[in-house]
Amino acid sequence: MSVKPIRGGVTVSRGFRAAAARAGLRSGPGPDVALIVSDGGPVPAAATFTKNRLRAAPVELSMRSLRASKGHAAAVVANAGCANAGTGAGGLEDARAVQALVARQVGVAGRFVITCSTGLIGSRLGVEKIASVLPGLEPASGRSADGQVARAIMTTDTVTKQAAAQVDLGGGREARIGGMAKGSGMIHPQMGTMLAFLTTDAPLPPGVLRDALRAVVDRSFNQVTVDGDPSTNDTVVIMASGAAGGRELSGRALRAFTDGLDAVARSLAEQIAADGEGAQHRIDVSVEGARDDREARRVARAVAGSSLVKSAVHGADPNWGRIAAAAGRAGARLDPDRLRVRIGPIAVYDGAPVDFDERAASRALRGKVVEIGLDLRLGGGAGMAWGCDLSAEYVAINSEYRT
Amino acid sequence: MSVKPIRGGVTVSRGFRAAAARAGLRSGPGPDVALIVSDGGPVPAAATFTKNRLRAAPVELSMRSLRASKGHAAAVVANAGCANAGTGAGGLEDARAVQALVARQVGVAGRFVITCSTGLIGSRLGVEKIASVLPGLEPASGRSADGQVARAIMTTDTVTKQAAAQVDLGGGREARIGGMAKGSGMIHPQMGTMLAFLTTDAPLPPGVLRDALRAVVDRSFNQVTVDGDPSTNDTVVIMASGAAGGRELSGRALRAFTDGLDAVARSLAEQIAADGEGAQHRIDVSVEGARDDREARRVARAVAGSSLVKSAVHGADPNWGRIAAAAGRAGARLDPDRLRVRIGPIAVYDGAPVDFDERAASRALRGKVVEIGLDLRLGGGAGMAWGCDLSAEYVAINSEYRT
Repeated sequence: MSVKPIRGGVTVSRGFRAAAARAGLRSGPGPDVALIVSDGGPVPAAATFTKNRLRAAPVELSMRSLRASKGHAAAVVANAGCANAGTGAGGLEDARAVQALVARQVGVAGRFVITCSTGLIGSRLGVEKIASVLPGLEPASGRSADGQVARAIMTTDTVTKQAAAQVDLGGGREARIGGMAKGSGMIHPQMGTMLAFLTTDAPLPPGVLRDALRAVVDRSFNQVTVDGDPSTNDTVVIMASGAAGGRELSGRALRAFTDGLDAVARSLAEQIAADGEGAQHRIDVSVEGARDDREARRVARAVAGSSLVKSAVHGADPNWGRIAAAAGRAGARLDPDRLRVRIGPIAVYDGAPVDFDERAASRALRGKVVEIGLDLRLGGGAGMAWGCDLSAEYVAINSEYRT
Repeated sequence: MSVKPIRGGVTVSRGFRAAAARAGLRSGPGPDVALIVSDGGPVPAAATFTKNRLRAAPVELSMRSLRASKGHAAAVVANAGCANAGTGAGGLEDARAVQALVARQVGVAGRFVITCSTGLIGSRLGVEKIASVLPGLEPASGRSADGQVARAIMTTDTVTKQAAAQVDLGGGREARIGGMAKGSGMIHPQMGTMLAFLTTDAPLPPGVLRDALRAVVDRSFNQVTVDGDPSTNDTVVIMASGAAGGRELSGRALRAFTDGLDAVARSLAEQIAADGEGAQHRIDVSVEGARDDREARRVARAVAGSSLVKSAVHGADPNWGRIAAAAGRAGARLDPDRLRVRIGPIAVYDGAPVDFDERAASRALRGKVVEIGLDLRLGGGAGMAWGCDLSAEYVAINSEYRT
């Protein structure tokens, strides 16, 4: 196996340092501003942004900056407490002000700084609060710095989310990939924007980095469903320092890197799903036999995102009808006579209802991680999605539906 | 105004009778089998069905029957307690058996009987229970019969849903339209399949009837969102007896009829939304200024279906950010700088946050019916959607987000 999980976060990749501080943008203790910087100035960078038409000011600015820099960045600055969304022209000015402050401090042009925000929609950003703490930041590498920045972007998250991997690129070369994320809580998804920051020391040109990121995001972050709503601020950013040395990746080395990025992104996606607000179970949905990967992912997401499936999991009710009905409305080709559904290892539907051990299936629904599998038996498409159960009162009623 | 609301349900239209009975398909008191028959045998009929790929057996059978009869029907039989969905070939045989029983009793071929079911997925239909009560049914017209059949299709609905209208067709002619529906409860949408049965005595050929129904369903039933999930059994049926006499409708008379059908369908849609499980408020979302009606409806549905908007309504929190963000993810063209949002009569966003009277806006959210208006200011498209608030415990937390 060319990918080895390692401990740590964004600074496991050589060439990056990070720091966090408390600017007081939100109530409660802990840092709320995070900075990740590249030691060597601007390096190749790529990002994916929310598809919501109501884009927050920092999203708008970061899109423009990455275009102007032709896919390069030297720093990412992120804050919690305020989304700087729905704030009009003034909001964009605020984001620009923060970008300029960081650019000056790092010693690069503004277009090399990516800005991200998460928090309340419609309030103006406390630029002066951020300005007052930036000069005191002393970016460093290591576990402590990683933990600090991961904490600074939390909103309703109950735990920090980090993942890292070491990738064997072949020919004696290795690269590292590090990342951190914050999730969208079940209750406050608008506040709980999904943010993920990734770093690598692999040498990759901007175009290749962007293509790899997009493919990986489609298989990981875009398959996490807590309430299914893209927020105004969702952002995934990656920077590639090239500090691992050697020539730019291609062929097998590039595939190994993409596998590593997949592993880190999937781990973060799983951590986000598991930390859905009030969640007691993570739900992993695997789909195979779809016409293509895209349709498989669509079905997986529909099942993982179904309130009825989520509440059936909460009530440990092996209600295959809800799973099949959710799959049926995913907008993908599906033939009920060919469909197979399993809950954990237990087959519960095979083209028609099958007799199964309800108690064993119910037990499979009580685990920390619940696996639901569907085989559409139509083609070679496969995909996964991650969700969590619904554990609130209204769901208690729903989960007792069959009893 | 050529459309006048009148009291009653499916038998206000001349040429139809109805009856209900208790077959014991579900626990609890009250009828669970409903029959609507045309006095004059097969008449023009049309239907729209769920887009879920996992179609229940009665949906499959009704689609085939309407095709075979070239858009004619003489009876509709519906049951609660069992959806007859996910039941494979055996389920289709069960639906056929019920169809055959009703056909024999009414004296028509099987293809003239439309079958509908609602209830639990994956259980076989109690055909013998239905067979045992059918012979005793004595279809009649009038308020009592209407109420009985409306009650027989209820599942988690707390009230029966009926609407009727008298339409002035011009030239001294008038026609009646009657209808009943059952809703999809917030908690049990799979059980709470949306069914609606409409009748009219207007003379309309099948093709015209079908086109009118489709247009009206797109503006009414398809715009009700309780949890946004098309079930396995959703069905809307209309039969047109022609008993009002005269030649087939066209031109102004047809437009007057369509207005009447719109009024009846919208009333039923509103009743379904208001009876969402646990709902304390109906939410009416009007969108204007979209590029076209289709995009307007899409935006309206996204806002009415947003858990965050629904819980903001529950908490009487005038959180325009949630409304704007829901509109932004609807997949329709939208420009945040042009967007206007109002809650009741209070403007809360106008291309940017505006100062508004939060207490007045909060009051507007406490009404039995809450109105949310959006003007996209991009074109002439308009549309509505109906939803309801989320009132359960997990929502209580959410609705307190800003306080």
